[in-house]
Amino acid sequence: MNLEEKSIAREYKFKGKIVNVRVDTVILPNGKSSFREVVEHPGAVAIVPIDSGENVFFVRQFRKACEKTILEVPAGKLEAGENPIDCACRELQEEIGMFPHKLDLLSVFYTSPGFSNELIYLYLARELQSFSIEKLDDEFLRIVKIPFARAVEKSINGEFEDAKTLVGLLLARSRLQ
Amino acid sequence: MNLEEKSIAREYKFKGKIVNVRVDTVILPNGKSSFREVVEHPGAVAIVPIDSGENVFFVRQFRKACEKTILEVPAGKLEAGENPIDCACRELQEEIGMFPHKLDLLSVFYTSPGFSNELIYLYLARELQSFSIEKLDDEFLRIVKIPFARAVEKSINGEFEDAKTLVGLLLARSRLQ
Repeated sequence: MNLEEKSIAREYKFKGKIVNVRVDTVILPNGKSSFREVVEHPGAVAIVPIDSGENVFFVRQFRKACEKTILEVPAGKLEAGENPIDCACRELQEEIGMFPHKLDLLSVFYTSPGFSNELIYLYLARELQSFSIEKLDDEFLRIVKIPFARAVEKSINGEFEDAKTLVGLLLARSRLQ
Repeated sequence: MNLEEKSIAREYKFKGKIVNVRVDTVILPNGKSSFREVVEHPGAVAIVPIDSGENVFFVRQFRKACEKTILEVPAGKLEAGENPIDCACRELQEEIGMFPHKLDLLSVFYTSPGFSNELIYLYLARELQSFSIEKLDDEFLRIVKIPFARAVEKSINGEFEDAKTLVGLLLARSRLQ
């Protein structure tokens, strides 16, 4: 059985600054038709930055969607035409004031393939050099430094509540073992 | 600095079967106002089902948002008022025809807190009992069985492209070590 669902119609319901939302009419593998809601996102990078003292840098931010502050690894949306490595370097500098002299791709994954095409390029960043932080107008965050071993422990104990942060720490642990 | 962003206005842009989309006008920590796009989702469960032979069950599904088939651990949306354990049991039965006699919560996390409130309850399921599959009308998938050790290896090597699948396998590995 071919699982593909061909779109025979597409209607945009919302075009925003961060996401677009559309509904596709699709033909299912059994020949019937159905609807699929799709949230289009430009994609993002996330970075696990580890310094020479084996500490990981996190940012605590208020997330309106979740109505609370969440501790996450640094991350940010890809700008139009931007390559993920440039984006990772830019975000690290903007969010924690560091430039990574060593950047390794850990994984590329969809955050929620059931309804969104958001794809995250996840990097491990080391050999960090301090820069002054270029403060962005609309980004309010607190930088938090946690020993890597403790951060891995927190991942295993369910103390992080963000998917990219969990994937990042657990893959970094495998990579650095 | 209090990082909270209070909403002073809210406008729904789309109400769908799976997601709603709204734009909130918020007051930033610096007193200025801004807009936040929010994709509301009912939440979901994901399950890492491991049988007595140390195999993990996956499902391969076509994901319209990503325009391709993706290999994922079984998962599904929470129905109104449904508790996550009931949902996990229901989804396992619907997707792979198994009932878990042992279910352990691995983690609870947001898939994409930057724009969505989708929260996933992630379980490790063992002591699986075969049931007949109740085929759903609009779910087309292929069941794939992979040895657990090989699945963990694939996670580390970047061969999975779904966040919940990566978190699930890497946390199950820590739990079962």
